[in-house]
Amino acid sequence: MTKPLLQIALDSLSLEKAVSDAKQAENFVDVIEVGTILACAEGMKAVSTLRALHPNHILVCDLKTTDAGATLAKMAFEAGADWLTVSAAAHPATKAACKAVADEFNAKHNPTTPKEIQIELYGNWTLADAKEWIDLGVTQAIYHRSRDAELAGKGWTAEDIELMKQLSELGLELSITGGIIPEDIHLFKEIKNAKSFIAGRALVGEKGQQTAEAIHSEINKYW
Amino acid sequence: MTKPLLQIALDSLSLEKAVSDAKQAENFVDVIEVGTILACAEGMKAVSTLRALHPNHILVCDLKTTDAGATLAKMAFEAGADWLTVSAAAHPATKAACKAVADEFNAKHNPTTPKEIQIELYGNWTLADAKEWIDLGVTQAIYHRSRDAELAGKGWTAEDIELMKQLSELGLELSITGGIIPEDIHLFKEIKNAKSFIAGRALVGEKGQQTAEAIHSEINKYW
Repeated sequence: MTKPLLQIALDSLSLEKAVSDAKQAENFVDVIEVGTILACAEGMKAVSTLRALHPNHILVCDLKTTDAGATLAKMAFEAGADWLTVSAAAHPATKAACKAVADEFNAKHNPTTPKEIQIELYGNWTLADAKEWIDLGVTQAIYHRSRDAELAGKGWTAEDIELMKQLSELGLELSITGGIIPEDIHLFKEIKNAKSFIAGRALVGEKGQQTAEAIHSEINKYW
Repeated sequence: MTKPLLQIALDSLSLEKAVSDAKQAENFVDVIEVGTILACAEGMKAVSTLRALHPNHILVCDLKTTDAGATLAKMAFEAGADWLTVSAAAHPATKAACKAVADEFNAKHNPTTPKEIQIELYGNWTLADAKEWIDLGVTQAIYHRSRDAELAGKGWTAEDIELMKQLSELGLELSITGGIIPEDIHLFKEIKNAKSFIAGRALVGEKGQQTAEAIHSEINKYW
């Protein structure tokens, strides 16, 4: 069983703040994510800059791709992203287009970290949809409380955990996000296929390292 | 009955190409859209630059906002966008957050073109969902063939038209997009609340003006 990774989501409004936060976190995270806010604020330059600064980290580009899959995937992978998020609400043809770009890149360049897409679970998706993603060759999904739901006070529920277990049993590796704090990690201990825990603000600033150590310690307890 | 507007979606990979395309189209379009591809490539600088160059056009920022509504809406409106797209798949709290930012901006600045959000119809939405958007005060939605579905050869169907009629009858103004050409316009003649027709590549290049005139001529026949 592989241990879940720790991922920092960079969601600042400026690249300057993002590179500073990434530099501070580089020794205690496995995955660096250009969050949607940062990508929309600064464009692909955010991805290429973080790629240049952190050549050995897994780099995620969180575009929540909803359409124009081939173009956005090509853009993100060429800028240096390893994984690209794709919205569950995207048309199947969009998901297929993103996957095809990843496969083509991998066949051509055989990168150390293969390019992958991650289905981000927004909207009214079903387990039947999830099976279609798997049939397409997708291996990763992202389960989260929406940031806005989190702000509205919605906590992790037994229903969340049950759905995650079902997705995991289908074979999908799950990244889990939405205000993750060390005290939450035990909630997910039954998710064997947990791929990464994603946190943002919790890993930034003076207490970032301490929080990261606490999350790693919890991960080591359960995986 | 108001005539539908004509909207150019700028989906180039560079701001240089986008400003050139917008300049060429400015006299025959009512609405300029920073498409998702352009926004992801260049960030909010694409919005602020097009705002500066085209102060009198309606400017759309097509982020297909799926989360972090308050931050993305604030960013887009402050950069100069009049309308912001929000994915139908976004959590209701995300839609509410975007709407609240628009309302707050309008109350504070009373702009000539009020800030509005447009629900972009991706994923498994229902008419019951549409009623919830209206209850939230949303007045606009975007109906389209996905770009990837279009590339896969999916045409406009009787089911599309029927759904548009139902959305229009609920009171939503509809922008219609997905490889729009002049020959398509008559298909939508029963959509009384057609707000705009969105085209991209069809309005760019040597034949752009001719295509725009043909679309305007069709609009004048039916509205």
